[in-house]
Amino acid sequence: MRLLRIGAPGAERPCAVGPGGIVRDLSPWGVADWTGESLDPDVLRDLAARLAREAGALPVADPAAERVGPPVRPGGHLLSIGLNYRAHAAEAGLALPDEPIVSTKAPTTLVGPYDDLLLPPGGEKTDWEVELAVVIGRRAQYLPDRSSALEHVAGFSTGNDVSERSWLLERGGQWVKGKSFESFSPLGPCLVTPDEAGDPQDLRLTCRVNGRLVQDGRTADMVFDVAHLIWYLSQFMVLQAGDVVLTGTPGGVALGRPDQPYLRPGDLVEAEVAGLGAHRQRCRAVLRPGAPGEAS
Amino acid sequence: MRLLRIGAPGAERPCAVGPGGIVRDLSPWGVADWTGESLDPDVLRDLAARLAREAGALPVADPAAERVGPPVRPGGHLLSIGLNYRAHAAEAGLALPDEPIVSTKAPTTLVGPYDDLLLPPGGEKTDWEVELAVVIGRRAQYLPDRSSALEHVAGFSTGNDVSERSWLLERGGQWVKGKSFESFSPLGPCLVTPDEAGDPQDLRLTCRVNGRLVQDGRTADMVFDVAHLIWYLSQFMVLQAGDVVLTGTPGGVALGRPDQPYLRPGDLVEAEVAGLGAHRQRCRAVLRPGAPGEAS
Repeated sequence: MRLLRIGAPGAERPCAVGPGGIVRDLSPWGVADWTGESLDPDVLRDLAARLAREAGALPVADPAAERVGPPVRPGGHLLSIGLNYRAHAAEAGLALPDEPIVSTKAPTTLVGPYDDLLLPPGGEKTDWEVELAVVIGRRAQYLPDRSSALEHVAGFSTGNDVSERSWLLERGGQWVKGKSFESFSPLGPCLVTPDEAGDPQDLRLTCRVNGRLVQDGRTADMVFDVAHLIWYLSQFMVLQAGDVVLTGTPGGVALGRPDQPYLRPGDLVEAEVAGLGAHRQRCRAVLRPGAPGEAS
Repeated sequence: MRLLRIGAPGAERPCAVGPGGIVRDLSPWGVADWTGESLDPDVLRDLAARLAREAGALPVADPAAERVGPPVRPGGHLLSIGLNYRAHAAEAGLALPDEPIVSTKAPTTLVGPYDDLLLPPGGEKTDWEVELAVVIGRRAQYLPDRSSALEHVAGFSTGNDVSERSWLLERGGQWVKGKSFESFSPLGPCLVTPDEAGDPQDLRLTCRVNGRLVQDGRTADMVFDVAHLIWYLSQFMVLQAGDVVLTGTPGGVALGRPDQPYLRPGDLVEAEVAGLGAHRQRCRAVLRPGAPGEAS
């Protein structure tokens, strides 16, 4: 099943792709939103079966005519895995980690796949990072080993772990600063359940900027695969339904290029995980009073 | 006004201390929980006025007879400021920062002030950090300067930024690993609105372990004060009502002591910010199958 949320920000309706590729609004079946218990793999399996039989009774939603939101409700924990592809670690000039590097992103970063990408005021090093996103469907804590890890997954989606490199690397300490600007976690358009997504370690990831292919990797090249990441995270935090794990980016970000072509207003960013869906985002500069460093 | 949430985990009722020190349940007035719009400073001011006049009509809640939860609903962004007191930076062997160091904690760390403090399986370096906690009451983004920062505050509370030092310092990269174990953000008992809390930069913070005074500081000694922190955070993320900022710990943590007396099962931890309230937590070891590092 492919889940979507369609509607204005904060007023999205929980939808899914039904027979014939027609998108249906599942609200009449008591699905309040794609979050919490509605993401449980067993619940999703039952909904998929019912959708195959009874979709005709549900309202149609048109993702071409209305805004598409992120496919899970904002408010879950957003986790970002660092340096999980060899080529990206190399281009960042950083050593390959012995165990996963974990950072986080503010909940307000989560937006839809066609929403504008907001370039922060004063930020001149905003960079792309196409990533396979994993959405948790069921509570996970202290998993004994990796064998059961994927049972906790609701599905997979296309993510872009947008990062402002100056705040990430030049403002002291932790990476969360560079990863938390509004709109920095576009996700979607769909959340694809594991039965439809295929092997999560055999997917192609690409990112295009103004039509030019800048990233082209495969999830087979992850240093730590999805099952390992979920097992690992569960060792020091409780994972809950609706949490999103961005699993790292392959090579090809602006930081790693000789000319460092960071994003500029008007740029078109198209992140895609093959089979899961593609973003299409226009960059827009945000203005505000004052500038960083001017307070006191 | 002093806000509390009383009831079993996940089923807390929004309460406040009314005339005569009697705790009242505000649910009948349409307050669903202490989160989101109900934390807006204007809303809280109106509720305080009404409470002074009409408290008698509300059900009484007894924090001595029932569990006290964290005073805000879990799900907000939990931010932790690092090395914000000179003595703590010195004892950690780290340089004083040029600008605030920002880390985060998983949403599932937030618990009540008398709940058990869960010592992670295999974790042998669990440490206390009493802190002044600031709860955001109103959206803040790109504040032009510090002058309006405190208008975005719902109130203050006693926090403990519990940290597992081995996962924090020895497991690669970002601090979130050591700060995200379940129960690692006890908060409360009350959220105290600014009019009752007094000057947030003139409060005494103490922590006692098994009755022994281990931390004794004053918020006057913060490197970056509350107004600066809120202004600063708003430069790279949207702050929302219900977000919690833990503003740093004074000296005296286990890490900084010659004998490094990390917490052990049965220990009693009493973090307190004078005038805001005190925790009283018993440490309990958590068991689980396997041990860290054993997977694959």
